[in-house]
Formats: sequence, structure tokens, C-alpha cells
Amino acid sequence: MPPALSTKMKALTYDGPGKTKVVDKPKPQIENPNEAVLRMVRTTICGTDLHIVHGDVPTVEVGRTLGHEGIGVVEEVGSEVKNFKKGDKVVIAAVVACAKCTFCRKGMQDLCKHGGWQLGHLMDGTHAEYFRMPYADTGLYHVPYGVDERGLLVVSDTLPTGLEVGAIRGNVHPGCTVAIVGAGPVGLAAGLTSTLYSPRSITFFDLSHSRLELAKRMLPGASTHTINTSGVKGSDATRDLAKGLFDAEIDGFDVVMEAVGIPATFDVCQNLVGKGGTIANIGVHSTKVDLAIDRLWPRGTTLSMALVSTHTIPRILDLLSVGKLVTAALMVTHDFKFSEVQKAYDVFDRAAETKALKVNIEFE
Amino acid sequence: MPPALSTKMKALTYDGPGKTKVVDKPKPQIENPNEAVLRMVRTTICGTDLHIVHGDVPTVEVGRTLGHEGIGVVEEVGSEVKNFKKGDKVVIAAVVACAKCTFCRKGMQDLCKHGGWQLGHLMDGTHAEYFRMPYADTGLYHVPYGVDERGLLVVSDTLPTGLEVGAIRGNVHPGCTVAIVGAGPVGLAAGLTSTLYSPRSITFFDLSHSRLELAKRMLPGASTHTINTSGVKGSDATRDLAKGLFDAEIDGFDVVMEAVGIPATFDVCQNLVGKGGTIANIGVHSTKVDLAIDRLWPRGTTLSMALVSTHTIPRILDLLSVGKLVTAALMVTHDFKFSEVQKAYDVFDRAAETKALKVNIEFE
Amino acid sequence: MPPALSTKMKALTYDGPGKTKVVDKPKPQIENPNEAVLRMVRTTICGTDLHIVHGDVPTVEVGRTLGHEGIGVVEEVGSEVKNFKKGDKVVIAAVVACAKCTFCRKGMQDLCKHGGWQLGHLMDGTHAEYFRMPYADTGLYHVPYGVDERGLLVVSDTLPTGLEVGAIRGNVHPGCTVAIVGAGPVGLAAGLTSTLYSPRSITFFDLSHSRLELAKRMLPGASTHTINTSGVKGSDATRDLAKGLFDAEIDGFDVVMEAVGIPATFDVCQNLVGKGGTIANIGVHSTKVDLAIDRLWPRGTTLSMALVSTHTIPRILDLLSVGKLVTAALMVTHDFKFSEVQKAYDVFDRAAETKALKVNIEFE
Amino acid sequence: MPPALSTKMKALTYDGPGKTKVVDKPKPQIENPNEAVLRMVRTTICGTDLHIVHGDVPTVEVGRTLGHEGIGVVEEVGSEVKNFKKGDKVVIAAVVACAKCTFCRKGMQDLCKHGGWQLGHLMDGTHAEYFRMPYADTGLYHVPYGVDERGLLVVSDTLPTGLEVGAIRGNVHPGCTVAIVGAGPVGLAAGLTSTLYSPRSITFFDLSHSRLELAKRMLPGASTHTINTSGVKGSDATRDLAKGLFDAEIDGFDVVMEAVGIPATFDVCQNLVGKGGTIANIGVHSTKVDLAIDRLWPRGTTLSMALVSTHTIPRILDLLSVGKLVTAALMVTHDFKFSEVQKAYDVFDRAAETKALKVNIEFE
Repeated sequence: MPPALSTKMKALTYDGPGKTKVVDKPKPQIENPNEAVLRMVRTTICGTDLHIVHGDVPTVEVGRTLGHEGIGVVEEVGSEVKNFKKGDKVVIAAVVACAKCTFCRKGMQDLCKHGGWQLGHLMDGTHAEYFRMPYADTGLYHVPYGVDERGLLVVSDTLPTGLEVGAIRGNVHPGCTVAIVGAGPVGLAAGLTSTLYSPRSITFFDLSHSRLELAKRMLPGASTHTINTSGVKGSDATRDLAKGLFDAEIDGFDVVMEAVGIPATFDVCQNLVGKGGTIANIGVHSTKVDLAIDRLWPRGTTLSMALVSTHTIPRILDLLSVGKLVTAALMVTHDFKFSEVQKAYDVFDRAAETKALKVNIEFE
Repeated sequence: MPPALSTKMKALTYDGPGKTKVVDKPKPQIENPNEAVLRMVRTTICGTDLHIVHGDVPTVEVGRTLGHEGIGVVEEVGSEVKNFKKGDKVVIAAVVACAKCTFCRKGMQDLCKHGGWQLGHLMDGTHAEYFRMPYADTGLYHVPYGVDERGLLVVSDTLPTGLEVGAIRGNVHPGCTVAIVGAGPVGLAAGLTSTLYSPRSITFFDLSHSRLELAKRMLPGASTHTINTSGVKGSDATRDLAKGLFDAEIDGFDVVMEAVGIPATFDVCQNLVGKGGTIANIGVHSTKVDLAIDRLWPRGTTLSMALVSTHTIPRILDLLSVGKLVTAALMVTHDFKFSEVQKAYDVFDRAAETKALKVNIEFE
Repeated sequence: MPPALSTKMKALTYDGPGKTKVVDKPKPQIENPNEAVLRMVRTTICGTDLHIVHGDVPTVEVGRTLGHEGIGVVEEVGSEVKNFKKGDKVVIAAVVACAKCTFCRKGMQDLCKHGGWQLGHLMDGTHAEYFRMPYADTGLYHVPYGVDERGLLVVSDTLPTGLEVGAIRGNVHPGCTVAIVGAGPVGLAAGLTSTLYSPRSITFFDLSHSRLELAKRMLPGASTHTINTSGVKGSDATRDLAKGLFDAEIDGFDVVMEAVGIPATFDVCQNLVGKGGTIANIGVHSTKVDLAIDRLWPRGTTLSMALVSTHTIPRILDLLSVGKLVTAALMVTHDFKFSEVQKAYDVFDRAAETKALKVNIEFE
Repeated sequence: MPPALSTKMKALTYDGPGKTKVVDKPKPQIENPNEAVLRMVRTTICGTDLHIVHGDVPTVEVGRTLGHEGIGVVEEVGSEVKNFKKGDKVVIAAVVACAKCTFCRKGMQDLCKHGGWQLGHLMDGTHAEYFRMPYADTGLYHVPYGVDERGLLVVSDTLPTGLEVGAIRGNVHPGCTVAIVGAGPVGLAAGLTSTLYSPRSITFFDLSHSRLELAKRMLPGASTHTINTSGVKGSDATRDLAKGLFDAEIDGFDVVMEAVGIPATFDVCQNLVGKGGTIANIGVHSTKVDLAIDRLWPRGTTLSMALVSTHTIPRILDLLSVGKLVTAALMVTHDFKFSEVQKAYDVFDRAAETKALKVNIEFE
């Protein structure tokens, strides 16, 4: 029996702290007229998926299908879906958005009263052969013609996070200096999308030589700088390494992005930010941090903290379709079949060793 | 000999921690062609002046004339001064601005390379019979016709601080909900100037019954609320008292202003701010604070920290001249002659007891 | 048989140029799950309705039920409607918005691909006992507690037009000077909502003494000025009358609003606007105008032309609920029963004579 | 006697309609302490200079030294000048700015009460061996290290005009579509600086094959399109040629720039602009134009008209110093010695034939 006719499918589920399990689940069905069911084509793993597997996200129940990123083909749409039909190839937005609530109307789809972060969290996600997307009209996007499909994997979450939470909320503007602490997928995406606003320079800070090398390949040109903080003690020493890369008068960078999520890197950020500057927090923090308000306040500092709303996905797809941002595909470091999905998680989890950034998981 | 012909004048100076001294000083002279010398008419005392007297500002030398606020009459102008002439009555801006440096051109006069906070700090201030203002064209403003002169004392610093650092950087907008923690002069000014943008409501939090009463008198109408936090333990309990004053869906206030400057009130602010909201820090902090970034980050919070640049003084004077913001004068609680200036400091320093907010000190 | 059980209702329809007809129509039914059917409580007439009746809007077919404003009670909702249930009293937005198309996502609901100006235009409107609202979740708003219902008639279209197209796109800001050419409902609404941003003054220009008097009653205080242009020839003469009401240095008003819609008043506007100023066009124009680009270009002028999107209705209702903007109700000059709807049109059409601005039409 | 010791210099002056004259003039001296005197190194000619020579600018007196662009070396500074000293090589801003008036403080230096367009207009300009710059601190900029000096000629006026009046006021943003009508120096500068904001595409319209070819060389890549309008009759036909280069849903370009300055090209612009779009007028207009307000108003159109303020020169220099915008130098098509300045005017005046865009005039 061909797979499309089967009522069962394979799905990767959370199986308690430290464990995942591949199970057979019923193929999802349209439950509300605003939904679409997709046959998955490719998916990828996010740091958040790892957090779930590590048992750090108590709101995820055992048996939940993981994943909130990927590309699929529309199998069926509900009666209210206007923008998609069976056979359309689509990018899935990581955020579910009803489009009508107070928050969606303000462009904060991440806080949607009927959506937000649902996929692979409070409802079954994209790490399965079939996937049901709520509010399909505002959660799916047509794959543009001629764009490398593998590179589109970073459009679900990584690139819009970098653009919205990093570049836009960080107020990157022509001629400014940008510092990015953390050159993982989100930091790299923040750097790459910052180039849309033509900063004078972008300086990446990371412990990993390979990530910094990748930053230079993704953002080629004289405006990209890297600082390896391996063995560097404290935020003052880190700042000392950056002398000459920011305007002495401003006494720091115009825009600083936190893309790690721990107190130590936050402290580096508040030490790097210049007068009148902005810190954009992208990192996922699980504890409080010390804020040097006594030092930052007389310097006119703005601190932005936000989640991705994915409202920039249409713009990102438009730009990819004309050849901009295409080096984002360099973040895809490993390829797997969906039958190897647990191996993909393992490789992604051991990123320091495997040099994994984003993995491409193809469905057969 | 009439005073104008004398070469001496009385000035109140810092005389070491805990001490002030009234001394005879030479009447200031024009030293640069951009300057003006004023005969002082009225002045007032800022919390910062008290900090200096308490010995908390090590950059202030013994013998420095205090004060950065007031109203004067132009005695003499340098050859480069275009906007003022002898005899003009003017309001003095608290911030010295060269108008030409990187920061001034960006509207951050507080960070002016050749100015910023100079008056009563790095150069002699306004608590003297005569006063020399650098860059007079950008530091003085004509007193508008028909406006109560006593009320103009809050135009040097208090009102622009409230407007710029509170209302504008806090993003107050029509229909939003505002919380202000601290109903001292700056908190009251932030509340009053917030009304320029028509929030749905403004809720003041303070320990002092008299200050909260004044808030209601300064901002009459159904949109002003007050919460007495006397005896309330912790930020959760404070938040509980505010239930019903913010939108339940937003789960907090749209805009929260910190107008005290200690860790405990900062914590109240981060507990009061709603989804997608802004905390505007106005308080003068002398230590770090704990930032609940793990809780604020997924809520889309912006934190603004800044000093006053005084660029809004022209607008404030325009508005006062048509009868807006005039209840600001209610902040002037006590009147003194300049011969009583040390008594004025004492009354202002014992504000909890004397209910002093701003004092009017008149020169004879 | 009680009306609710009947399948018929009364509706006012367009009956060809110069004619309307009251007809029996079938009560509307839910056709899509996103819709709601309302029992109408009150409605009003817009200048656009008159244009239709005069035969100026060829896209309107004979037999179309007129009207796009009003208040109703929900009778029935489709399965997709989340925010409303039977019995809710609601304000109707003049604009139909799908919430999901390119334009809705950008906040330009007036250009909605599946909506925009539909009511009383391309689908049956609100001048009927029952009315079907598409995309109910984004086109209806709960009536706030304690607000005068009659005054809410201007919330469907008039007030959001004034706020969005006049005050916001005109960039009204604290301390600026505003000129409004035309003191009809939309001009008055633009003036009233401009007060939300605290301009220094608002000057109304109109030929009608009664409208200018109403402007003063709606916007009481020293900041409201009126200029009767009756008998004034040309835009230079009109400008001469306004001397002293704008800043001589700016050489005109900071914000000028066109609220009439003819070349002569547009010319007045371009003559009134000052250096660095904005002209916000609100008027409905049916021909081209002469633009003095040779004169405006070196003065740094911005011209904004837009329709209402109604995205500000929630804010307007919030503000009305705390007593702001409530003088908008003064615009409602006449009261009719729905059985007198044709008489209401006649009175509204002869506004110069009857002094009608907005009429209140109550359903029985 | 070496030139620096002479008190005479050569200057190119306006000598009545159609005529220029090279004359001996006294070397300028510091007249106010805010001024600098420069020895000129290079200068160039602007379309405005031609307008003057053609007799179209009645405010220019016979004998006035022409020119408002160029590079010089500081010979002497007044006592108030802080940022420059003898020997500094500097770019001259086309606009004189006092930094202190209402307009300068708002960033509208073009409307400066004591400055604005002065050079080569109301005071002697840069087409002379020596030149006196008022308000030197805000009118001169240090030449950055390592940047091609010839290319810096477009920094005085051309590039900031393109950036400020075109890209910024036109609201160019990532992913948008841009149309530029006129590929002369200012149109090319607008296109080049628009790339700082990463539009999806930029389409140039011009009659000249060589200008359109240059556009493609200055903005290489798939995102640059050119349309030769030679022989095309009317704005509808022009629009037809652009089908496929804008979003069909938007029904036009997001941003349209007028860079010619005649009614016919303005009409093309208002026909090209899409729903919700902006027209940025850069062209120098000498007559009124027809504005299709009846058609633009329901489409949500903004029209911006402005002069350059030059406030973006620091950013432009920063970007040039890291290799961005450097293809601007391709606009410099011809080279002359200052002794050939009248020949340079002639070549520039016959641009259609000589293909001149900007000329490099070197002082010996």
C-alpha cells in the first residue's frame, strides 16, 4: 500500500528526559477548517528540541512529536484556507498565528492567544511523515522558484529569529558597528541578516574556531571580524580584544547581540555596548542575570528581549529568490534520512565535537 | 555700590561630605564667545545636588558652586551668541550642549563631548547670584509670555526628564496603560508628560500618601490611579494590588517607569510590565540590579535606560504657554530667599518629613 | 409573529441615481464560518452613502442595501468566530478585513484582498434590520461598559478616519500646530483625535459658522481656533487670516489636513503648510489637483493620502471608556427611527441648511 | 612668490545669463571664529551650477564664485573651530549649518536659519583656489584613510541627496521593489544608496543607454533592472514595460523616486507607485505638476519632497572606508585641471552628447 493511502506514519516523539522514540502514529487529519495537512519533505532540529529531550521543558508531555521547522507538500486543506491547495510546496513557520488576536494584530505572533510556540511543544510537530498546521494561511509560505531547498530549512525559525530579534530589534542601521556574542545558528543568522542594513562592521565572538571560520565564509568581505574568546577570562578581557573594532568616541559597539543565553555572555554584552547603543537579546536564558544598570543608565542603553514572530518570512523568501542571504545554506552541515533521525539528534547534540550547526533530515 | 557693579557675588558651594558653605566668589565673566552670563532670578534643588552634598559624587571638588536648574536674566553674551541679548529672561537647561559633536547631532546632548552634565558638577552652577552658561544658544530658552515663573523651575530638568526618559523612551501612546513606581518630582513629571500621549490610565506607586495625593491633583480625572505600597512586602504583593488596572490579556502594564533607583523598585517594575511592554528607567541607580531575563525575554520586553538630553524644552515651553502641563507648578512646595539656601537644602533633604518636592529659591 | 422569527426584514436600497427604496429582503444567513449576523440597533449615514445615492459610485448596483456604520446585537455566529457570541452588543467596523492577506498583515485593511470597502458597496450594508458581517472577529468590537451608545455611532468610520488618516499620518505631535481645512464630521474627528497627541493649537477653517462653533465645543480650551473662510477669495487670502496662529519661523503650520476633497481646498492646504510640515489628505477627491511641487519641494513637505483601515478602533473604545474623546457625541445632531430613514437621508443631504453632521437612526 | 603667500586667487564666477568668467579675487579670510579657510584640491559641478549659469536662479548675483562641492585642505581655522586644524584634508558639505537653530536641531540643515544653500549661491563657493567655509565644525568632514579621493567628490552633495531624499525618505526597506525615474547622478546615487537597505530589486528608467549601462555597472547583480524609455509615449506605456518587475498584488513598486524634475516624469512616477507605496521626489522642479489625488488617495500613497541636509555624510564616509558604495566613483566620467574649468562646464552642459555625469576638476 503506498504511504499516502496508509493511515499510519512514523513520528519521532519525546520519551522522557534524555530519551526519544520513533513510533507509529495515525496520520493527522484536518480538525478545523483553517488547517492544512502536509506530507513532510525535509525538517531540521533546533536547540529548543534538544532542551525538550534533555527534560528542560516541563510543558512537553511524553509522546509528543518533536520539531517546529521544515518543508512539506500540502496534502489537504480545510475549507477556510485561501492561500494554499493540495500539491503546494511550503515552508512551515515555527510560530502558530491566528492573525486575529490582540497580539497577532500588533505583529507579536509569538504571543498569539491561540498559537505562539505550539509545534513540537503543545501539539505534534514536524518530525513526522505527516504534519497538521493550524491557521495554515498565516503559518505556511510558498517555496520560491529556484531557491536551494536545503537552504530553506533555516527559514522556518533561524533566519527570522536573527532578523527580527537581532537585526531589527537591535536597530542595525547603515554604518553602525555590530558585535555578536555566540556564532551558533542564531548568531550567524543575526549576523547575516544584519548585512541587510549595511553596518560598517560585524564582529563575532565565539569559543569555536570552526564557527568563526564559517561566519567569515557566510559574511565574506572586510567588514566581518572574528574574536576567539577561548581561554579569555572575563568580560573586560573580552572587551580588550575588541579595541579598534568599535568607535573610540562611542566607547563600544552600536549594537550588541547576545546569542548564547548564559549570565557570562550577557555580561560580555553589557561590557561591549557603546554610548547610545542597543543590546538585543536572542539567547534562551534559564536564569536571571546581573544588570549593570548603574553603568548602563548614564550611557543611554536600550535592552531588547524578544522571541521570533516570523512576520519577516515573506521578506526573507523574496530576498532569497533574488540571491540575497543565500549563504545561509552554509549553516546546513549534515544530511540524514528521516530513518536516521535519532542519529541526527545525537550528532546535533554533540555539536562541539561534530561541528554540527543545522542538519538536513530528508523524508523518503 | 549696586550689586551689578560689584565684582563679587554670593555662591553656595560644596564643602566636603555633608557640608555646604556660602562664599563670596568673583562674578563670572565671558570666557568663550559662545557663552552668556546671567543674573539669577530663581533656582531650585535636585536630588543630584543632595547626592553631591552627601559626598556620593567624587567628581565634584570642594568649592564647586552647586545647582543646574533655574531662571535668570542675561547680563552679557559672547560674540558668537545669536539667540539672546542682555535683558532676556531665560530658562537654563540642565545639560550643556556644544550642538556639533557626534552625540549632540544624534540628539544625545547628555553625552556631549564638550558638555553633558557640567553645571554644579565640573563647573560652577546656578546656586549663585551670577552664573556663566557655556554654549548659550543651545542651553538657554526664552521664558514664554504669561507663564507662571515659579512653575518654570521644573523646566530646567524635571519635566524634560519625565518626558524624554519616561514618556518618550517608554513609548507611551494613546490608549496604553502606564505604571510609575515612585511619585517624587521625576515620577510626577513622567506621569504629567505621559498625558501628552493620552494613555488610558496612569497608576502611581509610592510609600507616601502626600505624594500620591499630589499625583491625583496634578493629573486630575478618572485615568489616574494611586497605590500606596507602604507595608507591602515584595514585588508580587505589589503586583497583586494593581490587578484590574492593567489589561488581563497583556498580563501587566504596557509601560512601566522606574523613578526611584534601587533594586527593590526595579524588581517591582519587571514584575509589573506586560507582554510586549517597555520598562523606562528614570531612577538614578548606584548598584547593579537583578534582571529576570528568563521571564522577560519570552514576553517581548524592552528596557530603556537614559539620561535627559533637554531637547524637548522648546516643546514644553510651547505647551506651557497654551496652558498645558501647568499643574507641574504644584510640585513647587516650598519658597525661600537665596539667603536661606542652606535652610532650603535642609528642608529638601528631609523630604519624607517636610513633604518637599521642589523648592523655589528666589534671588533678591 | 415576532420579528426575530420572521425571515424577512426591511432594508434601504440604492434605486438608481437620486433614488433610494425601502424594500423587504430576506434576513441574511451565515454563509461562511467566519461571519456573524447582527440585529441592528443603530446606524448612521456617511458622505459616501450620499455619493452612492447621487449616482457617483458606478460599482454600486441597484438594489444594494446601503450603509457601513452602526451598532448591532449578535444574532448568530459562524463556527470559526472566536471573539463573539449571540447577544453581544457590538460596533461594526466600516472596513472588512480577512486579517491574513498581504495588506491586512501590514495594517492596511482598507486594501484587504478579500475585504476593504465592501459594506453598502459590493455587499449589503447596515441600513437594514439585520446585517451579515464577514470576518466578524476582525470587523466587530465589543461595546464598552458605560459609554453613551449614541456617541458610538462615530466609532465605525468617522473617528478612526480622523485618527488614522488625519492625526497619525499627519504626524501630530506634542507642541505642533495643526490646521484643518473643513469642519465636517471627518475634519472634526481629525481635530478631536489630534488632541490625543497634544498639539500646541488646532485651527479649523470652514465656511459654516455652526460647524466652527461645534469645533470649539468639541475641543474646548485656548488651543482651538476657528477661521471662517466665507467670502474669502483664494488660498493666499486664507493664509493671511491665519497669521499669528503658526510659528513665523516655520512659515506655516506643522500639520495641515485636507478634509473637504476639492482642488480649491487642497490649494489652501499647500499654502498653509510650513517648512518641514505634513499635509494629510482625508478628503474624498474625484479629480486631480494642482501640486505646487516647485514651492513645496525645497520646504521639505510630506503629503500623505490614505483611507481608514479601522485598526485604531480598539484604542478609541478604550479611550472612550475612560472619558476621553467623548465630545465626539456632539457630532450626532439629529435622531430618527429607522422607519424614517429616507427622511434622515434628506436631512443629511441638505446639511448646509439643516446643520446635520451625523444622524442617529434607531431600529425599533 | 609661492601661491600660499599671495593674497590673490583665481575663481570662476557667474557673469550673467549664459556666461561665466575666471577672475582674480582676494584670497578669503576668516571673518567669524566658526569658519575655516581651505585650499581647494578638487571640485565638481552640479546641475544646480548649470541652472545658475543659464540664468535660472535670480538670487545669484553677477560676480558670485560658483560651486558647492569639493575637497580641500584646511589653511586656517577660527578660534571656535574644534574639529579641524591646519593641514587636515576635508570633504565639504554642500549645506551650511549653524547647528543651533530650530531647523538644524530637527535635522533639517537645508532649512538652517543662518545657512542652508549658501555656497556658490549667496556666498562665494568652491570653484576657486581658496574657499571660506562657515560653521566649519558642521560643514567639513575628515577624508577617511585609504578611500579614492576622486570618488569622494560625490560625497559633498550627490550621495547624501540620494540617501536622504531618495532611500531614507522613500522608505526603502529589505525586500521592497524600487523604481528610479532618471539615471543621472542623483538617480544613480539614490539607487546605489538604496542598496544599503537591501531592496528586492531596483529598476532604473532613462532615455540614455549609457546611463542605464552605468547603473548596471554601479549596482551589479540580478537585482538591478533597466528600462529604456526612449520613444515610449506616456506614463501608461512606461508602466507596461515594467510589468513583472513589481508585485502584481501591490500593483506597482513599493518605492518610486523622481530624479528628473519635470511634469512628465512625475506623472510616470505616480503611475508606477503601488498600493501603500511612497514617491520620493528628488528632482528639481520649476513648475507645478498634476497630482492624480483621486487615484492615489485610495491606494495609500505617501509623497515626500525634500532637499538634502547632508546629515548622512559621516555614515557615508564610514561606509566608503570599509569598501561599501565605492562604485559611486564610476559616476566621475571626466577629468580636468582647474585652468580648464570653463571647458569642464561646457562638457558637463552637453551631457547628452559627452556622456558626462560628474567631472573631476583638480587644482594645481
